[in-house]
Amino acid sequence: MTREVQLIGISNAIVDILAHVDDPFLDSIGAPRGSMTLIDETKARDIYQRMGPATEMSGGSVANTVAGFANLGGDAAYIGRVKNDQFGDVFVHDMRSLGVDVRLEPAQDGAATARSHVLISSDGQRTMQTYLGACTELGVADVTPETIGQAKVILLEGYVWDIPEGAALAAAAFAIGKATGSRVALSLSDSLCVERHQEAFMAAVIGGADIVFADEDEAMALYKVDSLDAVLAAIKGSDTLFVITCAAQGSVIVCGKENVLQDAIPISEIVDTTGAGDAYTAAFLYGWTADKPLAECAKLGTWCATAVIQKLGARLEKGVLDDYARAEF
Amino acid sequence: MTREVQLIGISNAIVDILAHVDDPFLDSIGAPRGSMTLIDETKARDIYQRMGPATEMSGGSVANTVAGFANLGGDAAYIGRVKNDQFGDVFVHDMRSLGVDVRLEPAQDGAATARSHVLISSDGQRTMQTYLGACTELGVADVTPETIGQAKVILLEGYVWDIPEGAALAAAAFAIGKATGSRVALSLSDSLCVERHQEAFMAAVIGGADIVFADEDEAMALYKVDSLDAVLAAIKGSDTLFVITCAAQGSVIVCGKENVLQDAIPISEIVDTTGAGDAYTAAFLYGWTADKPLAECAKLGTWCATAVIQKLGARLEKGVLDDYARAEF
Repeated sequence: MTREVQLIGISNAIVDILAHVDDPFLDSIGAPRGSMTLIDETKARDIYQRMGPATEMSGGSVANTVAGFANLGGDAAYIGRVKNDQFGDVFVHDMRSLGVDVRLEPAQDGAATARSHVLISSDGQRTMQTYLGACTELGVADVTPETIGQAKVILLEGYVWDIPEGAALAAAAFAIGKATGSRVALSLSDSLCVERHQEAFMAAVIGGADIVFADEDEAMALYKVDSLDAVLAAIKGSDTLFVITCAAQGSVIVCGKENVLQDAIPISEIVDTTGAGDAYTAAFLYGWTADKPLAECAKLGTWCATAVIQKLGARLEKGVLDDYARAEF
Repeated sequence: MTREVQLIGISNAIVDILAHVDDPFLDSIGAPRGSMTLIDETKARDIYQRMGPATEMSGGSVANTVAGFANLGGDAAYIGRVKNDQFGDVFVHDMRSLGVDVRLEPAQDGAATARSHVLISSDGQRTMQTYLGACTELGVADVTPETIGQAKVILLEGYVWDIPEGAALAAAAFAIGKATGSRVALSLSDSLCVERHQEAFMAAVIGGADIVFADEDEAMALYKVDSLDAVLAAIKGSDTLFVITCAAQGSVIVCGKENVLQDAIPISEIVDTTGAGDAYTAAFLYGWTADKPLAECAKLGTWCATAVIQKLGARLEKGVLDDYARAEF
């Protein structure tokens, strides 16, 4: 019997390889600052060989969200594909050690566990060069009523559409969600990803996504407009709950005709922006699955995103909410 | 032709798996706080399964020193054994990306690359549970005039004596050092390691070690005495240069009849003590190989050890000396 959970994430299972870089290094590998580029194994080897000493830790956008949700105390499960190699062990260990119910065992063959070279600039911005490896072999056969089970929220990331069976397995997840009464949420990943799959994402939003998580750029790319106001005009009255983060400008939640605004928390130093959006999503959903008001969900998201950008690495750590109740913002 | 370097390290090549733990966890695995215990693969799997989410980065005591020395701008080489697996790739990459001349290629077979579970308590103290894996297969055949080449300093760690051919390969290193005019340095690793190999270390000190790096506990274990004063009395007039670190009490350098004292730098928060001694050794040798006075070497060591305990992870980062010239301590 599959365990009933509050949140199940379906996404690319990735180990991050983090290193500090300068702008000339980014130029030398042809990577625009702040971009996420998919690369093949040859390019991955080349970049790794040329980059400096690194730190390895589990990553992946929705995987970060699932881990963060579990670290906040939520009950979560995860579907993603790794190989039975050392990075695959690391990924699965880090999930299971948080109590996350990892639904797929590491594959015995196929491509190596995915890795993302997370290149961090001195101002904390990250540029990612990602080799998807084993992720590309996640298929519709892995997304079934048995592997999904019963969940309050099924969360997919936009990057899933980058893998061969991504659109098909996402469709399966939506169908299972509808059949089981689960809410289906979509995290838009990045604006270039939205440009790659704009029609599919729009169809998903219209056709059944209950919640969409996006930053300002991703939301603009989805609606093919060039301002947040135009986005807000386009989604007004939609049945979908939109959660839009705007970095230092805070965030806005759109629920039908109601807009909830949340300011960011001013901080003096950003160490690494990796995972800020994922942490926001984790904490928002932690509040939302506990039936908190939207304004409270937004505050939780803001608090946790702020915590994660003040340290190296993408995942929320335990105890992040310890001071939350006492903070006023 | 083997590249001529200032420093070559010979040691156990290890990937650290770092996680925060509480005291009940240490009790549950039977690990005394602050200890380093050698474990087999079964125990390694058990501990890893039970510990929380972790971060992976290259480690190993003298390997940290070599990496730190290179990061300070020194020219270094390294001899240690890893397997051709993902952790082995990580280890070799991190060394080579600093310009370190890695003399042995990863092994195609044998045990997996070594890993040390570095369990960090809330006060920054670390407890290590180490599976030596591929390290145990380093042999005398790997320590030859060709692999060592010409180096100003050959640095060995005490942990080398824990592996089957350790004593023999250390003897080979001492002989090659004598033949090539290299100074041979010994880092005593930890006090339990000194207890395991006290006679061998004493013979090495008497028989040819030019420099010994030790903390207070290791030095007391070596001379089987119970105070620093007794250690200083025992080594007075020795031909060997002794560099003894005493944590918050600073450090003392003993050169023949001369003692050089160096205060520690007071800091408000210790994040992770892993690598403090290794960083001290790296910076001391960086000064020493550049013919700086001993007092200057001790200051450099203190500065770099202080930097490394204020962050997670054992290795010095680039730019650590940027403010050194302006600091007064």
